[in-house]
Amino acid sequence: MEILNKIVWNKDQLISAIIQDADTKKVLMMAWMNEESLKKTIFEGKCYFWSRSRNKLWLKGEESGHIHFVKEILLDCDNDCLLLMVKTEEGISCHTGRESCFFKQIKKNGDTMNEIEAVKMSPERIYKEKK
Amino acid sequence: MEILNKIVWNKDQLISAIIQDADTKKVLMMAWMNEESLKKTIFEGKCYFWSRSRNKLWLKGEESGHIHFVKEILLDCDNDCLLLMVKTEEGISCHTGRESCFFKQIKKNGDTMNEIEAVKMSPERIYKEKK
Repeated sequence: MEILNKIVWNKDQLISAIIQDADTKKVLMMAWMNEESLKKTIFEGKCYFWSRSRNKLWLKGEESGHIHFVKEILLDCDNDCLLLMVKTEEGISCHTGRESCFFKQIKKNGDTMNEIEAVKMSPERIYKEKK
Repeated sequence: MEILNKIVWNKDQLISAIIQDADTKKVLMMAWMNEESLKKTIFEGKCYFWSRSRNKLWLKGEESGHIHFVKEILLDCDNDCLLLMVKTEEGISCHTGRESCFFKQIKKNGDTMNEIEAVKMSPERIYKEKK
């Protein structure tokens, strides 16, 4: 895997990965990958990330069932950011049960936020049904 | 600006910002913002970033002329990543003269890359004309 040598890893040996829905073009989430998670993502065609809070590898959807299937992986001009085009399960990416993690719209004055996306499935239902 | 207190800044007091074209929905680039750059972005409606390599604030397009005009700012569920929907100038975001910085497609085997976007304007022309 030549690509692993091309990537400019940050000081924690991670690269940021933007996840975009291949069909709707909606940006769903941003997460981090280390070498192992990128390798597994390429080999298996499912998104694996490195959890900085839990300090472990995770398969996106391992608990929720909302696996992200990889259609295309793109690297940016500086070789320090990835963009993954994915197909989702049930159109849900966020742990809150929304399609996208980016559901808080900042108002023009910077003072308050609107929630612009509805919850498609409650977290209680997601994590009870899928475990 | 309430929003500044909501944001979970990283240990360098920065937040990552994904830039997406409001019309084409293409993901154009990823960059970093500190408090000052986010404030200026909200006030002026143009994207300002913090350059980690040059250690300074920069207005996107200050040299290239390819200003990014902000249509919408979204914050993610963890409050540690921004998504900005923008209008571009001449449909160019990347310093290489391409629409998007994400133009290197990683092949299925992870070994090589295809450049999937054409250069719309040469960097020589961009930086000579606009300075």
